[in-house]
Amino acid sequence: MSIRIGILGYGNLGKGVESAIRQNPDMELKAVFTRRDPKSVQVRTEGVSVLSADALETMQDEIDVLILCGGSATDLPVQTPRYASLYNVVDSFDTHARIPEHFDNVDKAAKAGGKIGIISCGWDPGMFSLNRLYANCILPEGKDYTFWGKGVSQGHSDAVRRIEGVKDARQYTIPVPEALEAVRNGENPELTTRQKHTRECFVVAKEGADLSRIEEEIKTMPNYFSDYDTTVHFITEEEMKRDHSGLPHGGCVIRTGKTGFSKEHGHVIEYNLKLESNPEFTGSVIAAYARAAYRMNREGMSGCKTVFDIAPAYLSSMSGEEIRAHLL
Amino acid sequence: MSIRIGILGYGNLGKGVESAIRQNPDMELKAVFTRRDPKSVQVRTEGVSVLSADALETMQDEIDVLILCGGSATDLPVQTPRYASLYNVVDSFDTHARIPEHFDNVDKAAKAGGKIGIISCGWDPGMFSLNRLYANCILPEGKDYTFWGKGVSQGHSDAVRRIEGVKDARQYTIPVPEALEAVRNGENPELTTRQKHTRECFVVAKEGADLSRIEEEIKTMPNYFSDYDTTVHFITEEEMKRDHSGLPHGGCVIRTGKTGFSKEHGHVIEYNLKLESNPEFTGSVIAAYARAAYRMNREGMSGCKTVFDIAPAYLSSMSGEEIRAHLL
Repeated sequence: MSIRIGILGYGNLGKGVESAIRQNPDMELKAVFTRRDPKSVQVRTEGVSVLSADALETMQDEIDVLILCGGSATDLPVQTPRYASLYNVVDSFDTHARIPEHFDNVDKAAKAGGKIGIISCGWDPGMFSLNRLYANCILPEGKDYTFWGKGVSQGHSDAVRRIEGVKDARQYTIPVPEALEAVRNGENPELTTRQKHTRECFVVAKEGADLSRIEEEIKTMPNYFSDYDTTVHFITEEEMKRDHSGLPHGGCVIRTGKTGFSKEHGHVIEYNLKLESNPEFTGSVIAAYARAAYRMNREGMSGCKTVFDIAPAYLSSMSGEEIRAHLL
Repeated sequence: MSIRIGILGYGNLGKGVESAIRQNPDMELKAVFTRRDPKSVQVRTEGVSVLSADALETMQDEIDVLILCGGSATDLPVQTPRYASLYNVVDSFDTHARIPEHFDNVDKAAKAGGKIGIISCGWDPGMFSLNRLYANCILPEGKDYTFWGKGVSQGHSDAVRRIEGVKDARQYTIPVPEALEAVRNGENPELTTRQKHTRECFVVAKEGADLSRIEEEIKTMPNYFSDYDTTVHFITEEEMKRDHSGLPHGGCVIRTGKTGFSKEHGHVIEYNLKLESNPEFTGSVIAAYARAAYRMNREGMSGCKTVFDIAPAYLSSMSGEEIRAHLL
C-alpha cells in the first residue's frame, strides 16, 4: 500500500514536492489543497483532485502525510501546529530565530493528536544542518563555514523588485572563490560577511527610469546589500526570460578541525550541493522525510521532530538488510 | 558523570580513539585492554591502566562502552559478538561481504545481554555509507560514485612489502582528476576501475635486489594492482621516513541525479573528506558513536546497530534545544 500524500499550497515548492512524489514508487499524491479557488489551480499529476483547504478538517482517513508548502513568515507558524494534530506533517520552516517556539507549538499539537510533525526540512535548514551536526560531533575542536550559491535568492530578488522603476529582477548569491579556497586548505580564516559572498543583480528597468539611482538604491540597501560587494546589470525583458528563468542554488558546509595528542593533524569535512532547481531539490528532501514521518508514526511515535531526531534508515524504502547490503 | 570507555587493542586505531576521547569532555578513558603482555604496552593518557583482555570478563561495572580496535579479518568476527553480550560495543568492521553475518551475530549477543553493539563505524564504512543513503533517498533516480584518496592504503602497502627484495613500501591510492571532474559536472560517466583511480608506490629495496623484477611484480599483481595504472618509485629508507611516515587519506561520495516532471533538472550531492590522519579521524567518528551507544542503551534499547539506525542527535553531547538553536 502506498503512502498517501497531501500537499497544501501549490507554489514552486508544492510543484517540487509533486514531481518528487512521482519518483518514489511507494508514494501516491492523493490531493492538492489550496486557499485559492480550487478551480483556478491546475495540477500536473493526472487524476489528482484540487480541494479547498477547508476539506482538510475531515480527510484524516485518506491522507497519511500532509506536506505544508506555505511560507515561513505567516503561513507555517499557523498551519503546522494546526494540522499536526490531525495529520503527520512535514514543513520547511526556515525562520531561524523562531524555530524553538515553532518546535514547541508543533510538538504539543502532534503529541495531542498522536502524530509526527517534522519541521525545518529541506537543504538549509535540513541537509546542511545535519552535516553541521555530524561534523561537529566528529571534530569537537574545529570551525564551521557555510557558503551559499551560486544561486538565486528569492528574498533578495523580491527586495530589488520593490525599488521604484524596477520591472523585474533576479539576484544571485556567489561565494568568494578565494575565501572558499582558504577554508578548504584548512587555513581557518576569520571571514567578514563581505569576504564570504558577493551579490550579482540582473534588473529590467521600467522605461525612462533613472538607472544610476536604482543601482545606488540596491547597493546601499541595509541588511540585503550594504554589507556586500554588489554588481548590477541592466538587461532587457527578453534576456531575463532567456537567461534567468531557472531557480538554481546550492552551496557547501565545511568543518575544519584538528585531532591528535598535540592537535597535530588537520581534517576537512565538506558537504557540497549543486542544484539546478532549488524547489525541486527541497521537495525531494521533504518527500524522503514524509516517508520517515509515516513509518515512525506507524511504530507508535509522535511529537515534533527535526532531521536531527530521525534515524537515516527511516528515509529509505529499502529494508534494513537491503541498505546494509547495498549502501554500508 | 563521564561515559567510561574501554579500548581493546592498542594499534593505530586504538591510539586514534585514545586521542579522540581527550577531545570529548563527557568521556573518560578507563582502561586499555590488550592480548599482549600489558607490561609491554605504554599508553599516552596519564593514569590509565593497561590490562589483559581477560580482565574484560568481570569489568562490566566499570566500563560503559568498549571500543574494539582489532582487525576485520580475524579479530572482530570473534570479539564483537563475544563482548556485545557484556558491554555496549563499537567496532569498525569493514569486510563488506561478511557484514550481514556479522550483524546477525552481534545482534543476537547484544540482545541477549541487553546492550547496544554498533558495527562498521568509521568513514567507509561509516560516514560515506550515511551519505550514500541520504543521497539515494533524496535523489531516487541517479548514480553513485565513490572515490578514495589521495591516501595511504595499508592493505596495498602490505602487499608490496611481501614481495621478495622489498624492505619497506607505501602505496597511495589517487583519484583520476578527469574522472572526478566529469562526475562533478553531472556527465554521469561509466568508469572502469582503471579510469577511476591510479596507484603510486614508494619502495625501499633491499641491497642488490632486482628493481625491474620488483616493479614488474607490483604492476602485475592480481586484485591489488593489475587493473590499475601503477607508478613505482624506488627511494631510500631516509626518504621513506621523511616523506611517507603519515597516514593521510580521504575521498568523496558523489551522487548525481535528476528531478522534475520531465527529469529536466540535474543535481550533484558531494561529501568530501581530506584527512591528515586516517586512524585519528576514524577514532573520532567511533568516539561520537560510543556516546550514541551509551545514550541509546540508557533509554532501554539493545541489539546491533549501524550508522543507518542511529538518529544524529544521539552523537552530540548537546541537548535537543541546543542543537536546534545552534546547528539547525
